[in-house]
Amino acid sequence: MDIVAGIDIGGTKTKVGLVTKEGKCLKSTWFRTREYPDFEKYLDKLYATVKSLVNDYPEDLNVLGIGIGAPNASSRHGTIENASNLLWKGTVPILAKLQERISVPMKLMNDASAAALGEMLFGNAKGMKDFIVVTLGTGFGAGIVANGQLIDGYDGFAGELGHVDMTLGDGRLTGLGVRGGLEAYVSATGLKRTILFMMSKYMDESRFRSIAFNDLHGEDITKAAEEGDPIALKAFDYTADILGQALANFTAFSQPEAFFLLGGLIGSGKWITEPLKKYFNDYLLEVYKGKVKLMYSGMKGKTAAICGAAALIWEDHQ
Amino acid sequence: MDIVAGIDIGGTKTKVGLVTKEGKCLKSTWFRTREYPDFEKYLDKLYATVKSLVNDYPEDLNVLGIGIGAPNASSRHGTIENASNLLWKGTVPILAKLQERISVPMKLMNDASAAALGEMLFGNAKGMKDFIVVTLGTGFGAGIVANGQLIDGYDGFAGELGHVDMTLGDGRLTGLGVRGGLEAYVSATGLKRTILFMMSKYMDESRFRSIAFNDLHGEDITKAAEEGDPIALKAFDYTADILGQALANFTAFSQPEAFFLLGGLIGSGKWITEPLKKYFNDYLLEVYKGKVKLMYSGMKGKTAAICGAAALIWEDHQ
Repeated sequence: MDIVAGIDIGGTKTKVGLVTKEGKCLKSTWFRTREYPDFEKYLDKLYATVKSLVNDYPEDLNVLGIGIGAPNASSRHGTIENASNLLWKGTVPILAKLQERISVPMKLMNDASAAALGEMLFGNAKGMKDFIVVTLGTGFGAGIVANGQLIDGYDGFAGELGHVDMTLGDGRLTGLGVRGGLEAYVSATGLKRTILFMMSKYMDESRFRSIAFNDLHGEDITKAAEEGDPIALKAFDYTADILGQALANFTAFSQPEAFFLLGGLIGSGKWITEPLKKYFNDYLLEVYKGKVKLMYSGMKGKTAAICGAAALIWEDHQ
Repeated sequence: MDIVAGIDIGGTKTKVGLVTKEGKCLKSTWFRTREYPDFEKYLDKLYATVKSLVNDYPEDLNVLGIGIGAPNASSRHGTIENASNLLWKGTVPILAKLQERISVPMKLMNDASAAALGEMLFGNAKGMKDFIVVTLGTGFGAGIVANGQLIDGYDGFAGELGHVDMTLGDGRLTGLGVRGGLEAYVSATGLKRTILFMMSKYMDESRFRSIAFNDLHGEDITKAAEEGDPIALKAFDYTADILGQALANFTAFSQPEAFFLLGGLIGSGKWITEPLKKYFNDYLLEVYKGKVKLMYSGMKGKTAAICGAAALIWEDHQ
């Protein structure tokens, strides 16, 4: 059976899986990225993981290629550059290095762009030609498709929308030092920062007054909203407001038919999506109103990112 | 000789010309758009103008088609929708109506997108696959090319970047009522508004203290800057700051190889471009630094927009 290995490199976990033409993940596994600060050792581990997944599979598999999604990845150069969530600093030539170990077709792409390709091949964007996938996890990522093609940019770094400044230079700093950058507001981390901001601004009672920032988790904020915690509700409203405005701005750029939302922040469900719908529609220019859908990603579960990465190779076998 | 008629519909003037395959405008003319508030009469005038240009030309011409650039144009529907600078309200089906009068291939596009296509076929973007044309006139327009294709958007309204809000809802209103919209700052009109703002903020002596807003012209602001007028210098610096930030934000979207700048505001030359270069580089994310060029448009003179419109048809005859 033909198969593609999909690899999703995240700040915490590296996920590896075997994906069929239909986007089904037959088998997957993961290991901790941070246990391999030495990049050569990381590659050895990555190679060993793919190899054992394929060898241990009960059927004979023909590996068509390896698709890799990673933060700050340049599809053009096959490198990861200055990724703030990874331990390897500077420019890491991951494709060239991995090719030394396995000789199959390989492609590397920004993780959000890989998610967009996965959505188009296997998910809810089938048949769409203009859409944007927005990943709201530790950071803020975007994969943009226009005219049925992924927008890569001149150098492979398109879609770094988490570092768009929404405040004319008068706001929070992102991990990359961008003042007012979207990611500092609209991400799982941004939501936590907003909890602190709301407690500084208002004197409402809140369960978060007795929880330290480092002990704060996204799920707690969702739970607090369900219990009517006013700080949690204000934080979701504030986050949805800024996200709605950002999506309205992005609409003015490429006018997508739909946005697909995924990632930890979207796991909060209606607490974020209900106010988001309202704000998005408020901010949308008249000419776009009623034409842009806000949708959940069709790539569900823990293997979504693996399937997205595998789509990089499956795209060439359609 | 094969020829394409290019039409540029502006709030003030409608320009019509005959353009060769090489992008040379053989002959052109114009009439005042506002003299035809009745849309049918406007179309009659438009048809008569094209016809007489072709008939009066000393050689025999074979008209391959008509390309039209207009504000708020939907390439998909062949309509102009709610253009704030035009007298015809609602949705105007210009292509269908013009087809009733002349039966040749026709295409309609947002004026800034037409400018981008013109730049690619005839101007300074020859051979480039990822670039953005920014028009800074009465308003703020953008034509975006990625992967060698114009980004039209789902409904043909991509690139309305003048209505991107840069201030989290706390700024000036644009003509379309967008608070904090870029066009309210970065356009010929925006610069005039900034002159007032600077005189309200600072007490510097300035020639503009004795000139009313309605009597204020872009050229006067350039001249004042040349004479060292502190209000003019502050206004250019402020405008360049916001434009630099906006272009840095757009870079995060599609990572163009170059921005091409044109329009009245750019006519101010170094007073806007020198501070712009500095601010743009300051705001650019590390991963983009040194990779994005700021360039002047290669489409010069009064027929630039006509040639851009004609490029819509010439694109199909390359």
